[in-house]
Amino acid sequence: MMGCMPISSAVLENPKSDRIRHVADLASRHTRRKIGKFLVEGPQSVREAVRFMPSAVHDLYVSASLMHNSHSAAEAIAFEADREGIYVHPCSGAVMDRISADCQGIAAVMDCEAVEHVATKPIDERLAADGDGRGGLVAACWQVRDPGNAGTIVRVADAAGCSGVILVDDCVDVTNPKVVRATAGSLFHIPVVRLGVDGFFGWAAERNVHVTAADVYGTSQRPPIGLPDMLAATDGAQTSQTRAVLFGNEARGLEEGTVNRCDDVVTIPIYGKAESLNVATSAAVLLYAFAMRSAAR
Amino acid sequence: MMGCMPISSAVLENPKSDRIRHVADLASRHTRRKIGKFLVEGPQSVREAVRFMPSAVHDLYVSASLMHNSHSAAEAIAFEADREGIYVHPCSGAVMDRISADCQGIAAVMDCEAVEHVATKPIDERLAADGDGRGGLVAACWQVRDPGNAGTIVRVADAAGCSGVILVDDCVDVTNPKVVRATAGSLFHIPVVRLGVDGFFGWAAERNVHVTAADVYGTSQRPPIGLPDMLAATDGAQTSQTRAVLFGNEARGLEEGTVNRCDDVVTIPIYGKAESLNVATSAAVLLYAFAMRSAAR
Repeated sequence: MMGCMPISSAVLENPKSDRIRHVADLASRHTRRKIGKFLVEGPQSVREAVRFMPSAVHDLYVSASLMHNSHSAAEAIAFEADREGIYVHPCSGAVMDRISADCQGIAAVMDCEAVEHVATKPIDERLAADGDGRGGLVAACWQVRDPGNAGTIVRVADAAGCSGVILVDDCVDVTNPKVVRATAGSLFHIPVVRLGVDGFFGWAAERNVHVTAADVYGTSQRPPIGLPDMLAATDGAQTSQTRAVLFGNEARGLEEGTVNRCDDVVTIPIYGKAESLNVATSAAVLLYAFAMRSAAR
Repeated sequence: MMGCMPISSAVLENPKSDRIRHVADLASRHTRRKIGKFLVEGPQSVREAVRFMPSAVHDLYVSASLMHNSHSAAEAIAFEADREGIYVHPCSGAVMDRISADCQGIAAVMDCEAVEHVATKPIDERLAADGDGRGGLVAACWQVRDPGNAGTIVRVADAAGCSGVILVDDCVDVTNPKVVRATAGSLFHIPVVRLGVDGFFGWAAERNVHVTAADVYGTSQRPPIGLPDMLAATDGAQTSQTRAVLFGNEARGLEEGTVNRCDDVVTIPIYGKAESLNVATSAAVLLYAFAMRSAAR
């Protein structure tokens, strides 16, 4: 261990203290907006936050009982946080319960601005860094409102090697605890950028990004192309063009005018009797299909 | 409309009546086991139940306010149910709220035995009927416990054209309301069969089914093969062998001994920094990859 401040030996035991009340209040969007901080819960997410964005992590709260267990993931994360100069607070079980019912004994308080981007710079930089002539991949969501769906899309976009996620128009808040949990740490791996509709299409035009709408029906101007056909059409093609796949709202999909602004429309074939797939499942199928195709080139 | 009994004009208004209490009690597994019935909630699931398994639907409860709205999905479903001889009960809002907070004004009570299979016959029949020389596809889950995951896997298996889903060992109860909701009607499209571990591998051996474990690590006997490599190996191959893809428990994956009983192990490449994908997302990626490959042959 490098020289650093020792982890406090004092255990926070009062769940009604001002400090703990403020942490618990981060479940409210209003409070997050007001003080610019959000809560990260559970060992996987906290570990990734400490590892990938240590300078944005203010405080780490960890169950004192886990701190005395040298085999716990929580203890290892606390030591790593301590080495990064993050304040580590051992807490009683009652305090951890007050902070969050879902944190499995460890939680961190972070700056919202570390994960809330309103300009494409971090994605552009990532695309440039990832660029190896195979073309990049970006996931985009229009008005996705369900926290579980948004978080799952960020996680699958990370796994599929996307350079970022763009939340277009009025999507769920990425610092919502349910979104953070569903990303399973991926929120700290890839940039998530919020743009308006015009901002998104303006970025795509400026950067020569090919925008593919994920939509069952398409429009008369943009008829849907089945995923296998779209993959076959790119077979053997050498392209360095970045593709953004745009997913629509859970209930309403994409608006016709928005679809018409895209370059093409992809649809997932339904081989059975299901009416549709949900948006997070569609994202998994489509992003992986494009990612595997790119990796094979 | 064919001749049938008229839909009752009497509106059920007492949320405390014995009938309504019994329906609401179906949220409990104990009650479902005892009386052999389960609850189907919401227009999409109820519509598919009425359409695909009308003889297993006993009673349909629908908000009286929706019954008087000739544009509502609920009214159309109620008329279809009535034509099938299902008892349709218009209910007050208070009664619908008592039945379920998640039913969007329509719910049905069904026989558990219509969807709880403990022998592979319905899958074997479906495989025979679907058989067109391209080989069938079956999804299997070992000890999947989360209702949302199990339901999502049934839905994606249906969409991908699987002939059925096998729940191996101790999985979540398919008549659990959260499972039923997550299947979005697919529970009524494809058979879901519960088997023990030996029963599953015995079925696979007897039917010459190729079992692929979905597992990140594999074992020394069964090293993992990346999905793109496994797809490339089947490129151009003409096989009529059915493949079952076996997914593991959310937290623990598959046991080593179970993996060794499979024919091979597939793993989804992680192109980014995510540690893993959740089981439902993995199922979407893998089942669609195999389904699209079969369809292309």
